[in-house]
Amino acid sequence: MKENKGRLFILSGPSGAGKSTVICEVLKRNPSLHFSVSYTTRPPRPEERDGAQYYFVNRSDFEAMIARNEFLEYTEYVGNYYGTSRPKMEAYLNAGTDVLLDIEVRGASNVRAKIPEAVSIFFLPPSFVELERRLRARNTDHEEKIAKRLQTAREEYEKARCYDYIVVNSDVNAAAREVEAIITAERCKMANRLYLIKEE
Amino acid sequence: MKENKGRLFILSGPSGAGKSTVICEVLKRNPSLHFSVSYTTRPPRPEERDGAQYYFVNRSDFEAMIARNEFLEYTEYVGNYYGTSRPKMEAYLNAGTDVLLDIEVRGASNVRAKIPEAVSIFFLPPSFVELERRLRARNTDHEEKIAKRLQTAREEYEKARCYDYIVVNSDVNAAAREVEAIITAERCKMANRLYLIKEE
Repeated sequence: MKENKGRLFILSGPSGAGKSTVICEVLKRNPSLHFSVSYTTRPPRPEERDGAQYYFVNRSDFEAMIARNEFLEYTEYVGNYYGTSRPKMEAYLNAGTDVLLDIEVRGASNVRAKIPEAVSIFFLPPSFVELERRLRARNTDHEEKIAKRLQTAREEYEKARCYDYIVVNSDVNAAAREVEAIITAERCKMANRLYLIKEE
Repeated sequence: MKENKGRLFILSGPSGAGKSTVICEVLKRNPSLHFSVSYTTRPPRPEERDGAQYYFVNRSDFEAMIARNEFLEYTEYVGNYYGTSRPKMEAYLNAGTDVLLDIEVRGASNVRAKIPEAVSIFFLPPSFVELERRLRARNTDHEEKIAKRLQTAREEYEKARCYDYIVVNSDVNAAAREVEAIITAERCKMANRLYLIKEE
């Protein structure tokens, strides 16, 4: 029954919009939400654990999953696969759990095509000036890479039009509260509560 | 510009759904919201003040306002007029203030026809059993009147389908938080934040 199903929230935004920090905050404050962990063939970084940031699998396992049609979407990027498991996602949604999926713009578009009722949120940094400052503050990227990221961000901004909601991350707490409000409001949508009327 | 305009929130629900209490709580916690006060020709009750629950006007003044097309909607009920002032409402919306309008189902439908971008919320009591209990707990109504109210409520339930959101008032604080979440989420809607992308 629709009323018992969870909702999928797609979260995208340009690198440097502080999306991950906001998602962490939302998850910390709402333990009933499930964060969808992607599969990848890229090697884990020192601080990463299997099942936390990603499920780390080898190429042949990943390709076997492709063959079994187990990905809601997947992509190859700089020689590595990244994908979202369909059975895992469906198990949570069917159990009535709301799921957050952090995914880039193109992947989001593929997921939206398969789960049209998914709710999508696009994160924006307060401004381009601020985005540039944040990218430089990381101090890990070369100038050329920063320029390329800013160009990509400009292109991604345009994609915000395809999303249901826009959250501006000028403050992590305020942005987290907006995401929580969107999740709550979606639960209150008439179509999601029609069963209350029918039951009476 | 659209981004600076306030949003109108239409709030309806059967008598006994506790709507007024929830609205009071929301207004207390969000002083930046404006509560739209209706005009009426019915005499004020002892506890009512002009400009708080209603603007109390006489019949000829009300009819002069009708003639000047100053009502967004109005109705006559048990010999008294009730109406929503259009210029007052527009002044707040144009100033960027979000407005709450407490109005019965038919009036809501008229307002929605004139302001299609209005966001509408329907309040439900937790259940009919609870609604009946609340109506009896008031201890002010005759049996016949209670039966009539319950019948009206049943009919109004069906109208919930025309609303954007449904808020179930099993707990005043929880219901107020849902209303606040809806207001916040509506501000985050892509169309309401497109100006952020254009500005960049």
